[in-house]
Amino acid sequence: MTRYDVLGLGNAIVDVLARTDDAFLVAHGLAKGSMRLIEEDEAERLYAAMGPATIVSGGSAANTIVGIASLGGSAAFVGKVKADEVGRHFTHDIGAAGVAFYGAPAGDGAATARSFILVTPDGERTMNTFLGACRDLGPEDVDAEAVRAARIVYMEGYLWDPPAAKQAFRKSVEIAHANGGTVALTLSDSFCVDRYRDEFIGLLRDGSVDLLFANEHELKSLYATADFDTALAALRQENVLAAVTRSGQGSVVVDREATIAVPAYPIEKLVDTTGAGDLYAAGFLFGFARGASRADCARLGAMAASEVIQHMGARPETSLKDLAADNGFAV
Amino acid sequence: MTRYDVLGLGNAIVDVLARTDDAFLVAHGLAKGSMRLIEEDEAERLYAAMGPATIVSGGSAANTIVGIASLGGSAAFVGKVKADEVGRHFTHDIGAAGVAFYGAPAGDGAATARSFILVTPDGERTMNTFLGACRDLGPEDVDAEAVRAARIVYMEGYLWDPPAAKQAFRKSVEIAHANGGTVALTLSDSFCVDRYRDEFIGLLRDGSVDLLFANEHELKSLYATADFDTALAALRQENVLAAVTRSGQGSVVVDREATIAVPAYPIEKLVDTTGAGDLYAAGFLFGFARGASRADCARLGAMAASEVIQHMGARPETSLKDLAADNGFAV
Repeated sequence: MTRYDVLGLGNAIVDVLARTDDAFLVAHGLAKGSMRLIEEDEAERLYAAMGPATIVSGGSAANTIVGIASLGGSAAFVGKVKADEVGRHFTHDIGAAGVAFYGAPAGDGAATARSFILVTPDGERTMNTFLGACRDLGPEDVDAEAVRAARIVYMEGYLWDPPAAKQAFRKSVEIAHANGGTVALTLSDSFCVDRYRDEFIGLLRDGSVDLLFANEHELKSLYATADFDTALAALRQENVLAAVTRSGQGSVVVDREATIAVPAYPIEKLVDTTGAGDLYAAGFLFGFARGASRADCARLGAMAASEVIQHMGARPETSLKDLAADNGFAV
Repeated sequence: MTRYDVLGLGNAIVDVLARTDDAFLVAHGLAKGSMRLIEEDEAERLYAAMGPATIVSGGSAANTIVGIASLGGSAAFVGKVKADEVGRHFTHDIGAAGVAFYGAPAGDGAATARSFILVTPDGERTMNTFLGACRDLGPEDVDAEAVRAARIVYMEGYLWDPPAAKQAFRKSVEIAHANGGTVALTLSDSFCVDRYRDEFIGLLRDGSVDLLFANEHELKSLYATADFDTALAALRQENVLAAVTRSGQGSVVVDREATIAVPAYPIEKLVDTTGAGDLYAAGFLFGFARGASRADCARLGAMAASEVIQHMGARPETSLKDLAADNGFAV
């Protein structure tokens, strides 16, 4: 049976990225750094107003899975696209990246999801996502054999946005745990955490999640506090292993017993933070699947994130496997 | 009446760019650095075989026109797209770049043109173009008022590939010259020159073209010689002003009386040569329209080219107007 290092479940999205300035964000009432959901008419309006765009495949968990493949891991992804030009591009890219894609494109229904991403000169990204076909993702899309074949099942908090995707999440958790697999979750976005705080805390406490990814804003949102140390103390009480990213301040890996801090990787120039958290998760998960130490998992995450923030788009442009070798990792 | 610094006429193409290695080019029998025309079935095959791709608007003359707008020039473009997702993206991007686009999308017929561009680690690009809707470009698409409103009409040799586009070219020449405008032509590609050598030489000798752009390969192909100096000597006999680019060796501006050599701009890292010639033409044409010296036209061209070869894709990612100001140009 095929063994995947990691199988991801998430929203299958194509990114439409354009550079902008802060005035544009203010004029359109966009909260810098966040992800907001938009309907098709707002997508049209925003696209008409934004500058020349680059179209690249995205989707948070999908980016992570592609990163794992780039590191040399075996990876699979479950998501929903429509059989349109955009869906074809998503399908091409994830396949070309070496990922097994479980997601026959829908012949009808809403268009493939797009995220209109505005990148300001400071490299920060502000996302506006039209979920489209992702809204039809449900438990029937989860291939039980594929989930059973994975060491780790990785899912995104964003799955709470479409109506039936959380059932796909729960089905995956059940199958994974019945087969000794690890379940990992990313909290995705602080506004997303705000929408589903109680459910996410529930997932940590009912044993659904073994490994948690969050950035400091999401963690503070989870425990409804403005103080990072308070949030971290609360997190230590949960029965999970957690990796918390803090942008330029690196990351901390915590569980009930220990806290390990790992610095960020040095970079030459910050271009676009899109995918920073996704690629951190990729490096961490790959290391975790291959039995690396927690510190090395975090270092691999930091390394993968450093590659993706130095160019436009949320997927690696170079071989992360080569990059890891160049940086002395032996995984 | 609106005055455009430059109006461009060319194939409206969206680029699908992927990194590859030389072995891939060899395996697919692709001549490195060239542009070849492909049909839809070959486009499908190539897309399926190529790696994850970035989709950005392209088209040689269109890139040049966008570069002129980025330099602060007033610019217009005439081209043909279909009313499909890809055509919509082309239309959005050229409009968002500040260019007046004369090209109502076709409701039926072939799909919007795409060029599948493979970029090797040395930064060289190899293009495979499916012309699609461009094959329907004809003289009826040329807006006479718009051409009359332009100081310079800029056209690409690639227009000889679709069946009726050369008639659009000739119509534009007539209108431009009747109104005191300048007609500029780029030779586009050495294989393209090989296909239409006699016709291109005819355009230089019958007074159709006032200003010629070529790289050294195209110029050698035009005069069917392997020796650059021989080709340059032949060019000096034509009654045109010509700017000839030589990659890292800079460019030479020649007419019957004088030859001016201008060095290439220093760069940090060559990433993707796609658009180098297009952006050189943009800088030169903008300077020319604004009355700059020939040497300054060439320097502006070199500057614009240096920006576009340091990232993926053939259109500027930064304001060329700001870049020109930072580099001490006063145009």
